[in-house]
Amino acid sequence: MRYFISDYSQGAHPDVLKALVETNFEHTDGYGLDVYCDNAASIIKSLIGKPDANIHFLVGGTPANVITIAATLKPYECVIAPHTSHIYMHETGAVEATGHKIYALDTEDGKLRPDMIQCVLDEFEDEHMTLPKLVYISNTTELGTIYKKSELEALSKFCKEKGLYLYLDGARLGSALTSPENDISIKDIANLVDAFYIGGTKNGTLFGEALIVLNDEINDHFRFYIKQNLGMLAKGRLLGVQFEALLKGGENSLLFKIAAHENNLAEKLRNGISDLGYEFLSESCTNQIFPILPKEKIAKLREEFLFEDWSSVDDPSKFAVRFVTGWGTTDDDINALLEALK
Amino acid sequence: MRYFISDYSQGAHPDVLKALVETNFEHTDGYGLDVYCDNAASIIKSLIGKPDANIHFLVGGTPANVITIAATLKPYECVIAPHTSHIYMHETGAVEATGHKIYALDTEDGKLRPDMIQCVLDEFEDEHMTLPKLVYISNTTELGTIYKKSELEALSKFCKEKGLYLYLDGARLGSALTSPENDISIKDIANLVDAFYIGGTKNGTLFGEALIVLNDEINDHFRFYIKQNLGMLAKGRLLGVQFEALLKGGENSLLFKIAAHENNLAEKLRNGISDLGYEFLSESCTNQIFPILPKEKIAKLREEFLFEDWSSVDDPSKFAVRFVTGWGTTDDDINALLEALK
Amino acid sequence: MRYFISDYSQGAHPDVLKALVETNFEHTDGYGLDVYCDNAASIIKSLIGKPDANIHFLVGGTPANVITIAATLKPYECVIAPHTSHIYMHETGAVEATGHKIYALDTEDGKLRPDMIQCVLDEFEDEHMTLPKLVYISNTTELGTIYKKSELEALSKFCKEKGLYLYLDGARLGSALTSPENDISIKDIANLVDAFYIGGTKNGTLFGEALIVLNDEINDHFRFYIKQNLGMLAKGRLLGVQFEALLKGGENSLLFKIAAHENNLAEKLRNGISDLGYEFLSESCTNQIFPILPKEKIAKLREEFLFEDWSSVDDPSKFAVRFVTGWGTTDDDINALLEALK
Amino acid sequence: MRYFISDYSQGAHPDVLKALVETNFEHTDGYGLDVYCDNAASIIKSLIGKPDANIHFLVGGTPANVITIAATLKPYECVIAPHTSHIYMHETGAVEATGHKIYALDTEDGKLRPDMIQCVLDEFEDEHMTLPKLVYISNTTELGTIYKKSELEALSKFCKEKGLYLYLDGARLGSALTSPENDISIKDIANLVDAFYIGGTKNGTLFGEALIVLNDEINDHFRFYIKQNLGMLAKGRLLGVQFEALLKGGENSLLFKIAAHENNLAEKLRNGISDLGYEFLSESCTNQIFPILPKEKIAKLREEFLFEDWSSVDDPSKFAVRFVTGWGTTDDDINALLEALK
Repeated sequence: MRYFISDYSQGAHPDVLKALVETNFEHTDGYGLDVYCDNAASIIKSLIGKPDANIHFLVGGTPANVITIAATLKPYECVIAPHTSHIYMHETGAVEATGHKIYALDTEDGKLRPDMIQCVLDEFEDEHMTLPKLVYISNTTELGTIYKKSELEALSKFCKEKGLYLYLDGARLGSALTSPENDISIKDIANLVDAFYIGGTKNGTLFGEALIVLNDEINDHFRFYIKQNLGMLAKGRLLGVQFEALLKGGENSLLFKIAAHENNLAEKLRNGISDLGYEFLSESCTNQIFPILPKEKIAKLREEFLFEDWSSVDDPSKFAVRFVTGWGTTDDDINALLEALK
Repeated sequence: MRYFISDYSQGAHPDVLKALVETNFEHTDGYGLDVYCDNAASIIKSLIGKPDANIHFLVGGTPANVITIAATLKPYECVIAPHTSHIYMHETGAVEATGHKIYALDTEDGKLRPDMIQCVLDEFEDEHMTLPKLVYISNTTELGTIYKKSELEALSKFCKEKGLYLYLDGARLGSALTSPENDISIKDIANLVDAFYIGGTKNGTLFGEALIVLNDEINDHFRFYIKQNLGMLAKGRLLGVQFEALLKGGENSLLFKIAAHENNLAEKLRNGISDLGYEFLSESCTNQIFPILPKEKIAKLREEFLFEDWSSVDDPSKFAVRFVTGWGTTDDDINALLEALK
Repeated sequence: MRYFISDYSQGAHPDVLKALVETNFEHTDGYGLDVYCDNAASIIKSLIGKPDANIHFLVGGTPANVITIAATLKPYECVIAPHTSHIYMHETGAVEATGHKIYALDTEDGKLRPDMIQCVLDEFEDEHMTLPKLVYISNTTELGTIYKKSELEALSKFCKEKGLYLYLDGARLGSALTSPENDISIKDIANLVDAFYIGGTKNGTLFGEALIVLNDEINDHFRFYIKQNLGMLAKGRLLGVQFEALLKGGENSLLFKIAAHENNLAEKLRNGISDLGYEFLSESCTNQIFPILPKEKIAKLREEFLFEDWSSVDDPSKFAVRFVTGWGTTDDDINALLEALK
Repeated sequence: MRYFISDYSQGAHPDVLKALVETNFEHTDGYGLDVYCDNAASIIKSLIGKPDANIHFLVGGTPANVITIAATLKPYECVIAPHTSHIYMHETGAVEATGHKIYALDTEDGKLRPDMIQCVLDEFEDEHMTLPKLVYISNTTELGTIYKKSELEALSKFCKEKGLYLYLDGARLGSALTSPENDISIKDIANLVDAFYIGGTKNGTLFGEALIVLNDEINDHFRFYIKQNLGMLAKGRLLGVQFEALLKGGENSLLFKIAAHENNLAEKLRNGISDLGYEFLSESCTNQIFPILPKEKIAKLREEFLFEDWSSVDDPSKFAVRFVTGWGTTDDDINALLEALK
């Protein structure tokens, strides 16, 4: 069986695993207050060009999203997010469980634009409504699309003008930044948002996301929020060790190599599928692609491949599926899938 | 200045006030455990034909909505409601503050239909998503429209089939039930929903809503939810006294007389405005109407009348406003407003 | 049957009721944004000597406590309160339901002192614990005792030094301030705490408490907290009308007359009971007294009087009960009770 | 520098690490729905003699505690726990953040007894108070003490009679069960409590606790609670792999070997310290010990050893400290510490 179901079906990239093994017998303080977390934080600050950034290592993406939102918002403030977003659709109401409304906006491509947010602001009246305060975006989006630099700049400018925080979910940030269509650098992101995270789980670590808080207002007593929201890891150095392995070398680090590998194989797959005459649900240029296939073909593929059903389409004889490439996906996997699609 | 801004700008209907004055010097137990609350509950049970219904008197509509939802849902379950609904738009995220997601649906007329809810159910996958469990509707809706009996029956049948609770916000239930277009009785409602409330605040009391819980699952430890959610009134008998005054006589009671009065004046106003050639934002048949007026005319009206701006419309020279009639609105008020609209 | 069970078993004092009746037919804006609330707020500001105080009228004491705490604390901050306090024992976990820990301290007399709070501060370490931030006291306490001026000053000084907010629950503040043993003025309180409320429900109104927020940090977006926590009354002017009636005349107002009446009758009762040779659970000097009576005597009293069992005592043949005087308690009531106790 | 500061200052026991390395390249489904989690669950069911138990693997102890409590309690129900307990003192109010009150009881030795709980039940009156529903205990306790079988049986019987759930925090359960003074088997625990967890983090895993839910009422929709409370690990199989390595062999498994090693070294240290004439804060018989040392001696020790200050004692020249042994603590470490204490 070949896995295209996610980019987190294997363990860690060998280089990350090696770092864990090599440091295993050392003693350190717990809860992320150790030299490995310090080193990884230093590497990140250098990579993003922000020596004063606040770095927190968290076990997963949902904790990163929910804890950041909990630390940012007052009880009466709400989040604006795409309807397709992870926090709205796939976190079991974890944001609402901390008491905050998510105001969800319909989008074609998973991306928010200033005019969409302005409509929400226009609706706001007074203390009978929640006050919009944080804009949540993801890059890549849930549909595999990415923000262009001009789009992110426009969003950032708009949020600053309106007193809104801008937060970017980077579960697949590596894939976004190494996409052939990308024109944004990680330094750009650090200049344009209030907080974002660099995803590790979907980029070669066993687990872990590196949250970067650029706005000190959000960082106030942040570690209390981590602990209260169940995100404090006892052996916190495991996160530091992995992110050090993933990010040392900065722009030439393993993170970007893994992401480029994933994107290259996804592109090869996308081109191959396109050549076979199939269409796609979204214009993904990253490591998730969403071809629309005949249901018969899908049933046949299942004998040999694992992948996710995504959504129905207008033609009832077809369905959109999702193929994802990971750090361990091989050329051979791609060839086999393309062969089976013929 | 004449008030069309709400149906709660005056105190209580004289008959309700009289009951409060007459009982003022009596001693009773607190927190709604008194003979007046018992009497009012008996009247309601008889009116709705449900001797085993559970009745709780609450100070306002937001408490009625939020407490009922808090008592109904497990932490991982969510509400389905119209985007225009009071709980989604005008309760400052109070439902979310108890930890529950509201999944909001766009509607033309403020009403939910089974196919709209089915779409939400279709999306549900597993424990990564909140589980849809309660459908919130209001009658009248926020747009002054009402449910037809066939619509409410279809919704009720659908919810039962799907294991969803159906809750009806009756802040203006009196107005709905006395609308010329209404074909539902209060007994029908009691047969079709799991819980609903009869609004007092907008129907002649100083304050107070009578919540009727027909599904015993929702009623479990209900008074704990009232207290925890700040809805327990020390001199609870004030609610019983008022609802006894409002509802004694059942179908011929003051509640329906006040509502019919409000509807009659609203209809006169609606017809008059229609005769003047104006259009309306919604097809309201109750005590709120939403004419679309030229902005100049609106500015002129403000000199003599108080009313609410409602929403922009396609024609930028016009705006939709809201006129509401209350228990104290007079024929003279209507004539004056129609005169000013000429 | 004669009522000593609470100070809220009757309706409103006649002067308060009269004000409600007289203003009943007027139209005003809702939600407390009306001339009566403005007037009542002005009277309060003058009474406490704080022209810049923020005044909010709320329906009950539990809402006043919970909303103030919700508006004051960050998610990771906690309350320090007496174990006997209303928020810890009698609000169904409403404070915890907003996410905040109450750290409860054992007291002999219901009063907190700096050294007790210092012990909690000493325990605090880091982000693995909640941060103590608000001290909750009540005056009168749940045991009928009151703070002396020197005690409140010491507490206030301590809290300021330690960066703690000091909040005073004044459900029976009138009774405290008119106690024969009181040496604190309402102006003193306004100078010494960050927020407090003047109780109406137990001092002659139908319902309502006047919350006074002296620290602007607590007042930020306060009305959002009121609405989100279900405390916003549609016909908010009812609160203004009642507090205007209760407080006009300032130090000579109805509030203090009612409280003095309650205290005088309670003192007469206490002295009479003491003369009969009974002991008391606490040294109350206000309108609640806690005599320790033989269980046989208690059973006999129940035939004619309504009152509350309070707590067991060392002697198993006896029990502590609570007698409370209200605005409508009469000399005749006291004489009858004393006669029955002989 | 030698570490006595915690039992989680190193990585994983070599056998656990080996299992992670060996399985690293396999593909599996995420979120704990994989063969390794299934295998580990089977081993646990066999070990505890409960083929129908529900097993959930969680990243840490705070998530295990908070998620279990969230899944067990209705909003109006509260927890009874020792004042010293982890949930009350060292989880930053995470339980309260889910809306639940913890009613904390003072204890001498960190253990709860039926009569203490009965006092809380006696206080309960009605809907104005939270309803006690879950009793939280830990074994070992925070003070290193353990429950005797008769004590746990008495507690279990009492809880069943009173309709209370009994939950046991087993962060250091291995150490408890291998203590020389222990007379409880893991099967006993499974028979006596409604839920408990076997701690991995402090017993040789990189992270992870195995939660065992024996009462199906608590297990209802449990995975929704895990996800909503941020406890769902994407590469969930990492937990299964580690617990399989830790527990295969059942009663002869690595878990018990590690725990016995920790206890043996702790006992050697305790005896040595006792022989030197020092006293202890608690009668610990497990892998945490709390000697009372002269402050001068403590300062001296710090040059070579890392350990935690615990609490002040009556004699101001002394202080209680905590020494903890872990899977990697050596005889040499103990000898060095005893030498330094001479």
